[in-house]
Amino acid sequence: MTTLRETIEEANAEALRRMLAADPVLVDVIPAGEAMPSLGGRTILHAGPPIDWDSMCGPMRGAVAGIAVFEGWAPDLKTATTMAAEGMFSFEPNHHYDAVGPMTGMTTVTQPVMVVENRAFGNRAYCAINEGLGKVMRFGGNDEEVRARLRWIRDILGPAFGRALRGSSGIELKNIIARGLTMGDEMHQRNVGCSGLLLRSIAPSLARIGIDHQDLADVLAFIAGNDQFFLNVAMAMGKAIMDPVRDIDGSTVVTAMSRNGTNFGIRVSGTGDRWFTAPVEMPAGLYFPGFTEDDANPDMGDSTIVETIGLGGFAMAAAPAVAGFVGAGAASDAANYTRSMSEITLAENPEWTIPALDYAGVPTGIDIRLVVETGIVPTINTGIAHKLPGVGQVGAGVVKAPRACFEQALLAFADEMGVAA
Amino acid sequence: MTTLRETIEEANAEALRRMLAADPVLVDVIPAGEAMPSLGGRTILHAGPPIDWDSMCGPMRGAVAGIAVFEGWAPDLKTATTMAAEGMFSFEPNHHYDAVGPMTGMTTVTQPVMVVENRAFGNRAYCAINEGLGKVMRFGGNDEEVRARLRWIRDILGPAFGRALRGSSGIELKNIIARGLTMGDEMHQRNVGCSGLLLRSIAPSLARIGIDHQDLADVLAFIAGNDQFFLNVAMAMGKAIMDPVRDIDGSTVVTAMSRNGTNFGIRVSGTGDRWFTAPVEMPAGLYFPGFTEDDANPDMGDSTIVETIGLGGFAMAAAPAVAGFVGAGAASDAANYTRSMSEITLAENPEWTIPALDYAGVPTGIDIRLVVETGIVPTINTGIAHKLPGVGQVGAGVVKAPRACFEQALLAFADEMGVAA
Repeated sequence: MTTLRETIEEANAEALRRMLAADPVLVDVIPAGEAMPSLGGRTILHAGPPIDWDSMCGPMRGAVAGIAVFEGWAPDLKTATTMAAEGMFSFEPNHHYDAVGPMTGMTTVTQPVMVVENRAFGNRAYCAINEGLGKVMRFGGNDEEVRARLRWIRDILGPAFGRALRGSSGIELKNIIARGLTMGDEMHQRNVGCSGLLLRSIAPSLARIGIDHQDLADVLAFIAGNDQFFLNVAMAMGKAIMDPVRDIDGSTVVTAMSRNGTNFGIRVSGTGDRWFTAPVEMPAGLYFPGFTEDDANPDMGDSTIVETIGLGGFAMAAAPAVAGFVGAGAASDAANYTRSMSEITLAENPEWTIPALDYAGVPTGIDIRLVVETGIVPTINTGIAHKLPGVGQVGAGVVKAPRACFEQALLAFADEMGVAA
Repeated sequence: MTTLRETIEEANAEALRRMLAADPVLVDVIPAGEAMPSLGGRTILHAGPPIDWDSMCGPMRGAVAGIAVFEGWAPDLKTATTMAAEGMFSFEPNHHYDAVGPMTGMTTVTQPVMVVENRAFGNRAYCAINEGLGKVMRFGGNDEEVRARLRWIRDILGPAFGRALRGSSGIELKNIIARGLTMGDEMHQRNVGCSGLLLRSIAPSLARIGIDHQDLADVLAFIAGNDQFFLNVAMAMGKAIMDPVRDIDGSTVVTAMSRNGTNFGIRVSGTGDRWFTAPVEMPAGLYFPGFTEDDANPDMGDSTIVETIGLGGFAMAAAPAVAGFVGAGAASDAANYTRSMSEITLAENPEWTIPALDYAGVPTGIDIRLVVETGIVPTINTGIAHKLPGVGQVGAGVVKAPRACFEQALLAFADEMGVAA
């Protein structure tokens, strides 16, 4: 007879096997409504676990108003806000639609989404295209400048990117991550290496589709001008990797971490699609000139899917330059973050290794038991949004996943396994 | 009265000031004959200090034959070899024409050269475009495949690259190097970060010149497909930085290190354009499958200009992934190479810093006195050519600059300064 411990170990071995066997490939860019046929009109997908209008933070409310105007559901931001308060839009998590979105994470029917296919398991995951830095919708920006950029992404960039991908054999992402880890990226707050590698992969195909030279130049300049362009690709990849791990009986591996700006939520393989939530924490970080901690919104976004697969804060040792950017100490301290995350994970990823640690793999497979036992919680590298609607990004920092999520999950897991409390 | 030591210290401070004040910008690509009006027909510029046909190593002879056929001076390789032996070509160092070239370093009249302008001093330096890896002319390759690629570079890539640069404000290289050092590059054997940054800078301008979409796709694919594309840019930059330092009375700073496959040569600021030479050493390295040390040609190329400005082997700490590639030990050993080079240099470059060393600058300004006193010689990261003509690259490794060059230079310098032997 197998013991409970053996059952869990076997289940976790299977979870880890699926994570490491994943083969994520960026294959297409299509409108969200086409990618997700069940996505209705006036439905707004947001980051994090479920939330209603009344509980939404400032930047998420700002983004909701902006995306409603962008979709033509409201004539202006004020009307959009009133309509939202009156319940005229449906709110659902990206995670319930095979999708993820950074920060506020707005996904609606006409927005183009990048499609990452996990060829080992056949599932697909989606994420909108990164808008660039500064005043952007993911940080709560919503004015005409922000919306005009989204229209250009919808009308020019998205279709061109999709045609270029369909004209290629797709971009294999595991290799890009492996190289990015040798180029100082951790794929959450630093994506300059991977963004360059992605441009190198797609630029010839973009030229081959034969669009107008000025549009092509604009598309290349947009991708080339955004060091964080790859973040959204990494997020769709993370979702594509973790979704096949979502329902293994007896596994204590975390399959998603996500925040809606109000609550932090996690999902665990052995407890399926249930969310375990707790109030989000405030990032400790560095602020752009003119902003302080008083301006900051608490932690937000689906981007923690990146940490869920061993990157971001977990791969800080690969990215000493990011340590200073997020206020995590000296560059030489970066390795300590990765070593610490090894205490709450099951294994090192043999394909995603860190030269500065003599090719140790990134810490992979967060085990809720280890988090609760050690008291060490996942470290997340994050952007910081202004707490008011319409402003945008004000800094970057490091934030902790709330321990309460993991404690709740472990209690529910124990219950599921028939262990008396 | 100033002492000799004070004179030297002042001269070296001036040398260092000029190195750090340099402002190298990639501004154009033009035919070598246009860049260097004194470059005559049937003149072949080569890497390293001066050398005649009889003393040339196998791969350099192979490249000479290949470039003579490419230029239409000979109908085939055999005839070209006979013509070379009969003295029908003039051989001169790239360094005598404001130019540099990797490995065999062939530069001839119709080849396109990249132009780096040092805007702080007004001088220009030149380097041919990197051909890619494998069987290429810089490693002694010379067959029709190699020559066809050079023709495509001359007819399509070079003119397009030049037009794109002239349509832009140029690419400022100091910033690219600063970023590349945070992306695991040392700019000699690893240029993947900088090659991506260069593509990001030039791709929109390339699209804007409006050439045929397939040619544009080919140009983008060629640049994107070559991790070492940036090496030749870094070399022209190195030459542009060091040339204004070439003639400071009393300075013991090395202004060039270069090898022709037979001899290693250095130049020192206080002794002007005189070369101090000694036989080149054999790199210690790792070989591509099917090749061994028995196949290897000794050290070759002008690419040591990269070490002369504090990159390459001097910046190994920035590039732990390259340590394994060149057989220089574990990734964690990389920092030791940089620390060791600090013993023979005057300063750290405050603008080119290494995150993993908590932003210490790269070791800058090689002082021949320190080399002779400590016995520590410059460490160079290098490619390894097959010793026979026509084969190509067989590996990569680390090689030492011969101590004898520095000893000779110090004696000549002492003589110049009126110090009795």
